Amino acid sequence: MYRTHTCGELRKSDIGKEVTLAGWLQTIRKFGSINFVDLRDRYGITQLLLGEELNKQLDENPLGREFVLQVKGIVTERSNKNANLPTGDIEIKVTSFSILNKSATPPFTIQDDTDGGDDVRMKYRYLDLRRNAVKKNLELRYTVNRAARNYLHENNFMDLETPFLIKSTPEGARDFVVPSRMNAGQFYALPQSPQTFKQLLMVSGYDRYFQIVKCFRDEDLRADRQPEFTQIDCEMSFVEQEDILNMFEGMIKYIFKQVKGIDYTEKVERMSWEDAMWHYGNDKPDIRFGMKICNLKFPSHTFPHQQNISSLINDVNFKVFDDAETVVAIAVPASSEMTRKEIDALTEWVKRPQIGMKGLVYIKYNIDGTLKSSVDKFYHEDKLKKIAEATNANPGDLILILAGAEERTRKAISELRLETGKNKGFRKDDEFKLLWVLDFPLFEYAEDENRWVARHHPFTAPKPDHIEVMINNDPTIADAAEYLKHPYAGIKANAYDMVLNGNEIGGGSIRIFQRGLQEKMFDALGMTKEEALHKFGFLLGAFEYGAPPHGGIAFGFDRLCSILGGSESIRDFIAFPKNNSGRDVMLDAPGTIDEKQLNELSIKLDVQKN
Amino acid sequence: MYRTHTCGELRKSDIGKEVTLAGWLQTIRKFGSINFVDLRDRYGITQLLLGEELNKQLDENPLGREFVLQVKGIVTERSNKNANLPTGDIEIKVTSFSILNKSATPPFTIQDDTDGGDDVRMKYRYLDLRRNAVKKNLELRYTVNRAARNYLHENNFMDLETPFLIKSTPEGARDFVVPSRMNAGQFYALPQSPQTFKQLLMVSGYDRYFQIVKCFRDEDLRADRQPEFTQIDCEMSFVEQEDILNMFEGMIKYIFKQVKGIDYTEKVERMSWEDAMWHYGNDKPDIRFGMKICNLKFPSHTFPHQQNISSLINDVNFKVFDDAETVVAIAVPASSEMTRKEIDALTEWVKRPQIGMKGLVYIKYNIDGTLKSSVDKFYHEDKLKKIAEATNANPGDLILILAGAEERTRKAISELRLETGKNKGFRKDDEFKLLWVLDFPLFEYAEDENRWVARHHPFTAPKPDHIEVMINNDPTIADAAEYLKHPYAGIKANAYDMVLNGNEIGGGSIRIFQRGLQEKMFDALGMTKEEALHKFGFLLGAFEYGAPPHGGIAFGFDRLCSILGGSESIRDFIAFPKNNSGRDVMLDAPGTIDEKQLNELSIKLDVQKN
Repeated sequence: MYRTHTCGELRKSDIGKEVTLAGWLQTIRKFGSINFVDLRDRYGITQLLLGEELNKQLDENPLGREFVLQVKGIVTERSNKNANLPTGDIEIKVTSFSILNKSATPPFTIQDDTDGGDDVRMKYRYLDLRRNAVKKNLELRYTVNRAARNYLHENNFMDLETPFLIKSTPEGARDFVVPSRMNAGQFYALPQSPQTFKQLLMVSGYDRYFQIVKCFRDEDLRADRQPEFTQIDCEMSFVEQEDILNMFEGMIKYIFKQVKGIDYTEKVERMSWEDAMWHYGNDKPDIRFGMKICNLKFPSHTFPHQQNISSLINDVNFKVFDDAETVVAIAVPASSEMTRKEIDALTEWVKRPQIGMKGLVYIKYNIDGTLKSSVDKFYHEDKLKKIAEATNANPGDLILILAGAEERTRKAISELRLETGKNKGFRKDDEFKLLWVLDFPLFEYAEDENRWVARHHPFTAPKPDHIEVMINNDPTIADAAEYLKHPYAGIKANAYDMVLNGNEIGGGSIRIFQRGLQEKMFDALGMTKEEALHKFGFLLGAFEYGAPPHGGIAFGFDRLCSILGGSESIRDFIAFPKNNSGRDVMLDAPGTIDEKQLNELSIKLDVQKN
Repeated sequence: MYRTHTCGELRKSDIGKEVTLAGWLQTIRKFGSINFVDLRDRYGITQLLLGEELNKQLDENPLGREFVLQVKGIVTERSNKNANLPTGDIEIKVTSFSILNKSATPPFTIQDDTDGGDDVRMKYRYLDLRRNAVKKNLELRYTVNRAARNYLHENNFMDLETPFLIKSTPEGARDFVVPSRMNAGQFYALPQSPQTFKQLLMVSGYDRYFQIVKCFRDEDLRADRQPEFTQIDCEMSFVEQEDILNMFEGMIKYIFKQVKGIDYTEKVERMSWEDAMWHYGNDKPDIRFGMKICNLKFPSHTFPHQQNISSLINDVNFKVFDDAETVVAIAVPASSEMTRKEIDALTEWVKRPQIGMKGLVYIKYNIDGTLKSSVDKFYHEDKLKKIAEATNANPGDLILILAGAEERTRKAISELRLETGKNKGFRKDDEFKLLWVLDFPLFEYAEDENRWVARHHPFTAPKPDHIEVMINNDPTIADAAEYLKHPYAGIKANAYDMVLNGNEIGGGSIRIFQRGLQEKMFDALGMTKEEALHKFGFLLGAFEYGAPPHGGIAFGFDRLCSILGGSESIRDFIAFPKNNSGRDVMLDAPGTIDEKQLNELSIKLDVQKN
């Protein structure tokens, strides 16, 4: 061993000991004829004192930043203690040192606030990983990994490895494929998730399965997506939805405790998908704060059970509202004194193409109880007051109203709620609020193909009392315009998402475990019998031989870590991430392969020039 | 939850409890008007008693093997206890049952000694996995996984995930590649191991890394190889070989304890590669038994430090020995009374093409001290006795002698030693014997290209006192016939293999960490500067910025599990293995992909018809 101790462990109680340390030179400072070096390793920083007697050696072998040193010396008390450093009470009076390896000057500083831009840090990722800011993230990732494993182990789950070279069954996202040399003209696919395998394991009787496993999706990358990502993948047999919810809110609470020291003792809130859409405008609401949506007007087929209050805004000839499919409002607390300029900025914000609104209507509910709005021309103060009351506003609040087509407008008010909530400081970094969103629709309508697609995936079971609706109805959509009236539109799934601070961190469902129902599902998705057998024959076969009731969940491990670490970007929590073009700029991958290898794989390049 | 208890947990102390169980019907037996069912789940088997009152329901809903049942009932004492079953003291007096799912008749019996052949069991792997024999293997695998993680965690190792979509750097085995859609004409490779990444992590300062990780090699599959396999992959910084050996024999001993309950307290034996070849004829000797090789004749350049004792067999005009490059013998204990027929069978065994010998010479060292051999014509009894003594034979032993070309003959005697050792019962299933093999040659000679290849991999460091030999000599081999005289032939590596009962279970090395030496290594392997930079520029770059001394090891997880489980086949320890053509017969993968997907990937099929 090149060392007796790490750079993070020596304390006052070690004074007098002869020690050997090894690590990286963080800084060197000359102080008269003495040199002070901060020596760094994974565990911390220890100050070295190099006395005059070493100057000759230093002159012959000058040290520099990031040199790898081995030093021997005596632990001594520091005259000038550093309370910010766990080792700050001591320093090493160096008796001898050797340079284990030199370093060129790094292209950026190895510090929390580095001077390196994103590109150069990604190219030299092995240096970026030295920075404490990145190291903390990877340590957190390992702690989450370890906590999840321990919890699942204690609960009788088994880590069972599923294969990576599987069969391509395009349904949903695009597969990465791997040409098979030994089976010319054929391809493996890399798994988008171990979904069918974990279900087979349930059929095999391994009633509690987990895996922390890489998954692959060849999608066009959005800012914070990676072509390969990690899931905490779990499945259980002989369970109902309630059992899964309890088991996995337990897991996340255990992780909170292990990773953040937080006792999350309250029951995790639950909300139906419909309530989430109605009150928050999206299916992963951030419930750290209120500001629920007031639905002043909405298409009745979308929320058939909700009461219409459009009389509050009707009959004043305000064309913007009259023509709109949907009119929705939020009340921003203690914001009635927002300036014209600030409101203009918000108006510009909702008009950006990402939000896509035509404008913003506001009502100031002043502290003195008076009301002032951008639509005073159309609405008397008593009308404004009624609208304000409908939004649950108090004097001092500012009501913001959006109008337009249902889907876009609901999405826009949701974004506006999050944006204003953030600006008001309601989305606190150190507050963690979990939520189960339940009762998702089983199907989504695919307009371009006029057919149903699985909202979660084709293995999700309908709610028990919706199974009959599914079996007894033809999935064909006769009239595309009226698809919402098709019985399938109302079928809800036994599916659930776990939401943390407005981010989906996990999702799953109770699965279909009967061959007949699974076949009906494939049929509902427009698959022919032959297609279903070709793609999923092994699963339909397995369901013939005593498949137990089962269900599961998968957590996005990268995302979970990034939220727990207080970051927006999952890349900060991946040791070697890819950029937005799916490239690893450090490796310079992907790259070309030679003709011989292409021949062996029985493929040719066919690159189209544009 | 569909159950209050599992099928493995009810005991005498539970008598009187009302319980709900769920599981699979293993057997049903009619006994007068009563039915007994064995209900099975992952945890065990519980006997159910279905009384007369349930017969009407049973008639309407006949039960069958592998049906999934849920039963409610009362735990009662069994009159006829079954001591072989943990639940054998009790049975469930069933009050009601329901069929959760039916089962078709399985294609083979779900029992330890199943009637299913290999092919049908692989096709219905989800049923094969139900068998206790397979379940035990996967449970053992998880226990090994868990034990390795716990040991490494306690020793400050961090699980750090490395990428799967990397760069193809063909060197050694063939890469599986993945066409990149977003980078037309380019390919990712799947990692053969995370080798360079774990070294980069050392450069980054994460001084103790591990991962239990899938690796991929596109090789022609031998009987017990899989295209995807799992490694326990580890790396440490600021260590010398001794530190690694200690750390990882500690890990294997910890696994022995956790998995087998074995206290492996003795120090793991160590042997140089040269001694292993000299005494056992291969680099992974099974040291559970002796029968060391006696080298009667050998080419002196292969073992330059060993004494020649060929005078024992020379000068009798026995052409077989005179013409042979190598003559080697073993003494099989207590076998002098082997019959002519048995010896003929052994002779046929060594003449099989896999062994490739022309014949077998034997000497019977009889109990009474007389000697009788198949070469009595050439050797007087006193000569035979000298040979026998050189093999360390005792009266009653049988000496077997092989002669031929060095490499083949040494391999053959090694195989013969293992075969006869097995027949004599020296290779006990319940005995575990670890061995470190050290001091491997750094280079191997590649005859077809007349150049050096790395025996381990190009990142392995030479022994410290061999570095100068490597740096100061030109790798070019002027005379192919004399390659063994090249200074590089004698360079030993700081590499080590861990051997268990004659199987290599792990291997690793101290790594090169200096850019200059790494460049010299690439040069020695015949890589041009440009090639080295193109393939490994990122690693050479990393070595510029303060790379610490480091080394590591990787254990073949599948193999380790199969040996601990007492099986010859790693397939038995993999949930979903592939067959020898790399196919998953359950999934029917690999498979074809459609034209659209090929277009998106900018490739065309180019299948050659034979």
